[in-house]
Amino acid sequence: MTLTLLAMPGNEAQANALAARLGCAVMLPQMRRFPDGETYLRLEGPVTQNAAIVCTLDRPDAKFLPLVFAADTLRDLGARRVGLVAPYLSYMRQDTRFQAGEAVTSKSFAHRVSDSFDWMVTVDPHLHRYRSASEIYSIPVSVLHAGPLLAQWIAAHVNAPVLIGPDSESVQWVSAVAANLNAPFTVLEKVRKGDREVEVRIKDSQILETGRQAVIVDDILSSGRTMLEAVKLAKRAGAPSPICLAIHAVFAEGAEQPLTAQGARIVTADTIAHPTNAIAVAGLLADAIRASVAA
Amino acid sequence: MTLTLLAMPGNEAQANALAARLGCAVMLPQMRRFPDGETYLRLEGPVTQNAAIVCTLDRPDAKFLPLVFAADTLRDLGARRVGLVAPYLSYMRQDTRFQAGEAVTSKSFAHRVSDSFDWMVTVDPHLHRYRSASEIYSIPVSVLHAGPLLAQWIAAHVNAPVLIGPDSESVQWVSAVAANLNAPFTVLEKVRKGDREVEVRIKDSQILETGRQAVIVDDILSSGRTMLEAVKLAKRAGAPSPICLAIHAVFAEGAEQPLTAQGARIVTADTIAHPTNAIAVAGLLADAIRASVAA
Repeated sequence: MTLTLLAMPGNEAQANALAARLGCAVMLPQMRRFPDGETYLRLEGPVTQNAAIVCTLDRPDAKFLPLVFAADTLRDLGARRVGLVAPYLSYMRQDTRFQAGEAVTSKSFAHRVSDSFDWMVTVDPHLHRYRSASEIYSIPVSVLHAGPLLAQWIAAHVNAPVLIGPDSESVQWVSAVAANLNAPFTVLEKVRKGDREVEVRIKDSQILETGRQAVIVDDILSSGRTMLEAVKLAKRAGAPSPICLAIHAVFAEGAEQPLTAQGARIVTADTIAHPTNAIAVAGLLADAIRASVAA
Repeated sequence: MTLTLLAMPGNEAQANALAARLGCAVMLPQMRRFPDGETYLRLEGPVTQNAAIVCTLDRPDAKFLPLVFAADTLRDLGARRVGLVAPYLSYMRQDTRFQAGEAVTSKSFAHRVSDSFDWMVTVDPHLHRYRSASEIYSIPVSVLHAGPLLAQWIAAHVNAPVLIGPDSESVQWVSAVAANLNAPFTVLEKVRKGDREVEVRIKDSQILETGRQAVIVDDILSSGRTMLEAVKLAKRAGAPSPICLAIHAVFAEGAEQPLTAQGARIVTADTIAHPTNAIAVAGLLADAIRASVAA
């Protein structure tokens, strides 16, 4: 298709996979930092009326200005519509004012993104209190679901799985994936103690004593604390080497090591480039990009 | 005055100096990073109808989202008008497309700032091709000039100065400060070789052989390369220990050491907090804030 597909730094592999499916080329920006910390950005080559920027949005603060500079420049160079392909979408968690005076960053961020793009495509944003992304984004947003891809991966790689959701928020995930596989599942109870400390409990621990391969499934692997507690609990309950399966490999500094030290195998989708990526989302994204451009 | 004055991290000293002059309190945000790199921000205490955020904008990329989150939160909490006090204003240098496809970051940045604030106060932005900040900012901008403060500092600390402008762009500065002091001055010719390499030449080197104290004056001290070449040239021409006087202490990593190694003394205004700060701009800013709030 006729589309200018710009890959921001770190998104080259995903953009190449998309370009192969969409039949277009990938444009790479020239980017560098001036000595004073400002970003220099230059785009080379012709720009078509339809354009999209591939930029996954983990660690979003430093990425935001370069991203909107790129969007503005595509328009200056002839793009009529510019879409954002953000396989991981940030700032979806602070969706209300839990304490007086808190910034509701999800709304502020959505407002700025909506101001700079015509459409967006993303995979499983962390919708908690929001029922849909369009509650806060004023542009059309295609929300894609990687659950079936996770189920496919399990079906292809695990003989007799038992699925574990690490907290009540994961019920939607785990139950859907388990139904898809016709496999048993359980959901742990999580008690959060601050940003970085959590505790988990299980009600039906006998489900882990059946000799099945435990697969802990979550949407985001960030600090890894919840996943780590779930791994320890699964091991105590008799599931020796659980698989940790997640969509978004956010991985805060040092989050991976304690999991592998427990003998867990980590498998993630490639919404954020990471060595644990084993599930490609390009097929999902490509279909949604095609539809968004045609809309 | 009745004003909520919020100091973003690193701007506490400037905000305290302003608060003392304006007769208001300083609000400090609670800020931290989540493990996934997102910013958490919370404001405590009552917010008045008029609010202003003090946030100097060197190294702007990582500062931008927290800044707009703070502006949005002030409005949520009751502010009707929110101003930005940015003693140093970034993204003023890429003011045109020097090569095809370059991002005109000054316009993109101005658009985003104008979208989030009602007014702005800044000190000597690097206006080059723009005649005024209002060419790109759609909100009222008070542009303040630190030149008279620089002249006052020289008058108080240097007996018989000779002023040096490191390049043709500094003519406006140096000539004004020199006239104010009734002191001789010269302006060097700069040949820029990329972002980080420069060469300077002098036409009237005899002006530096008069035994006067050489004071090199510039608006921004960033990579320090221009200033360093000017220092070396001044020393070769017979001015042993020049003073480097600048408004904005941007100071890229490692920029200071080569200057002090040449025996130069560095003096800056406090638009960006730095150990070389010796000239306070709070008086200038306070008057402009008062006028902006009243407008």
